[in-house]
Parts: sequence; C-alpha cells; structure tokens
Amino acid sequence: MNLPDSSPPPTWIDRMRWSDDGLIPAIVQDASTGSVLMLAWMNREALIRSLQTGQTHFYSRSRRALWHKGATSGHTQHIEQIRVDCDADTLLIQVRQHGGACHEGYLSCFFRLAVGDQWISDQSPVFDPDRVYTQAELSRSTAPTDPTTPDTPAPSAQAERRPAASAAPPPADTV
Amino acid sequence: MNLPDSSPPPTWIDRMRWSDDGLIPAIVQDASTGSVLMLAWMNREALIRSLQTGQTHFYSRSRRALWHKGATSGHTQHIEQIRVDCDADTLLIQVRQHGGACHEGYLSCFFRLAVGDQWISDQSPVFDPDRVYTQAELSRSTAPTDPTTPDTPAPSAQAERRPAASAAPPPADTV
Repeated sequence: MNLPDSSPPPTWIDRMRWSDDGLIPAIVQDASTGSVLMLAWMNREALIRSLQTGQTHFYSRSRRALWHKGATSGHTQHIEQIRVDCDADTLLIQVRQHGGACHEGYLSCFFRLAVGDQWISDQSPVFDPDRVYTQAELSRSTAPTDPTTPDTPAPSAQAERRPAASAAPPPADTV
Repeated sequence: MNLPDSSPPPTWIDRMRWSDDGLIPAIVQDASTGSVLMLAWMNREALIRSLQTGQTHFYSRSRRALWHKGATSGHTQHIEQIRVDCDADTLLIQVRQHGGACHEGYLSCFFRLAVGDQWISDQSPVFDPDRVYTQAELSRSTAPTDPTTPDTPAPSAQAERRPAASAAPPPADTV
C-alpha cells in the first residue's frame, strides 16, 4: 500500500465524491479483528499522503491541518486495504494498529456503550495516555525540527490528546 | 434496544456533538461478523426513532427527509448495540442485517477494494436488486397508504436504489 512519491495519484481519487469542503469521512477498522477503531476526515492531500506512506493521514477540521495519526504517540496505523462505498463518498481503511487508536488510551475510540440513559465504558485501556503523551512532549522538546516535512505539521501532544470523556459536552473537535 | 414511545429520549442525545446541520455520522456494523456495512447520517429525530423502534432510521441529506432503512427493500437493520466515540460526534451501531445493506445487492456498501488505479468488487451479491425493488414497487402500487407514519415517508424504490457503480462519477447523494 505504498505509492512511490514520484507516482501520480490513482485516478480513482477524482471519482470520490468530496464534500463541498473537500473532505470525505474515513472509517478505520482493525484488519485482523474487525474492530472499528475511529472515524476521521481526509482531504485529497491526506489521502494521497496515506497512499504514499502506507500510514493513515487525516485532515483536522478544527486545526485545519494535515494530521499524521500517531505522530505524537507513535500509535501509527499501517494500511492493509482501502475500500470505497457504493456512493464513493466514504472510505473504509483496514489497518494494523500500533498501540491504541484513541487518545484516551483505548484501542478503539468507540469504547463506550449506550445503556439506557448513560454511556458505559466496557473496554480496558491499552496504554497510559499520561505516560505516552508526556514522553512525547519531552522527546519533542529535545528533538531537532524536521525541515523535510513542512506539509505535515505534527500536532502537539495536547492537540492529539483530548480530555477524558465526561458528562459535560466534549471539547472542540480535533479530528 | 426498544425505547417505548412514551419514554423521554435518553439524556445522552443532548451530549452528542451534532454538526451545525444537526447531523452525526453513524457507522453501521454487522454485530456478528464485524463487517462494516455502511455509513449514513442521523439527525436527532432519526436517532430517537431508531431507539424507539430498534431499527435504524437515518436522515437523507439529499432528500432532506427521515429514512427507515429497509422500508422499500425489507432489508431492515435490527439494532443490537449503539456505541459512541470519545468525541461524541460519531455513532457505531451494531446490527443484525436482514438481506443486504447495499442497494446494489451486496451485504456491505464497501464491496469495492482500491487496487492500483481501480476499484475492484471482491464480494458477491446477496440479493438481486432488480427483483427486490421491482417487487417493492408493485407492492407499493397496490398497498393502502399508511397514515400512521407521516413522519417517516418511505423512500421510493428509485430513491433507495441508486445506479450501479461505474467509472463515471456516482449519482447524487441519497444517504
């Protein structure tokens, strides 16, 4: 699933039905277990970058920037298959997930189940977000800036990591 | 997963992060196999109707109307679980799918795989859309109108059924 940088993008990208904002939703699914990990948004550049690198890249609607999943946490998603729906307005991306997909420490962002009037977490965390994101911040503060990827600004740990779910309205969208 | 009509909607509906248009994407997954069947959109009414009936209802952005999945084809989706993501802006609905989810005759709308420059169908149809939708049209033309559900206009067979995928740009959005 790696497209050489020098290759033209596949022509099917132009057959996708991009929204007026130039986006499509991308469902990310664990290729081995079938677990749905997350939903995020891609623009044309994010999709091409995903095809070129074999790792998921998305477009953050709140930050208005390209976003390499796992850039902060190391929890990257390695693409096995890309499927398209009958309307060509949604992608299903099957991946090998390193670590967890959710910034709250879970394998899947869908770790909560609606039960009556409540959302109940019925899954166990697979990593400690405090540890992972603190280490990432420390590494970032001592690492040299990579000038070769100006088009993929890595999100800050704060941007990739959002506050824990609570009864209060969730924070502003970061995916 | 059936909420009595007389019950108030669960309060978590107000904690969902509805878009400016009052919508959220809902991923529909086969509860037994994990296969991702489709993505569609819900407004508040579609979600409440889904909770009340135990069957998926969506909001059609193109027709601007509530839509009961399977109203035309009989291929309803019976809800087993509803999960919410960490941002509370996407639902994952796990269902028992009757027939196929895709109007083109496939179990899943994601029956096409991106391979190089092409989309390749790698799944077999589970029903004949010509037969199913023609029969539905015939039944509709002889059946009395049901005046008890004015808020859930059943889509016409043409509306639920979209033309087959081709190299040409797909038709206008009907989900």
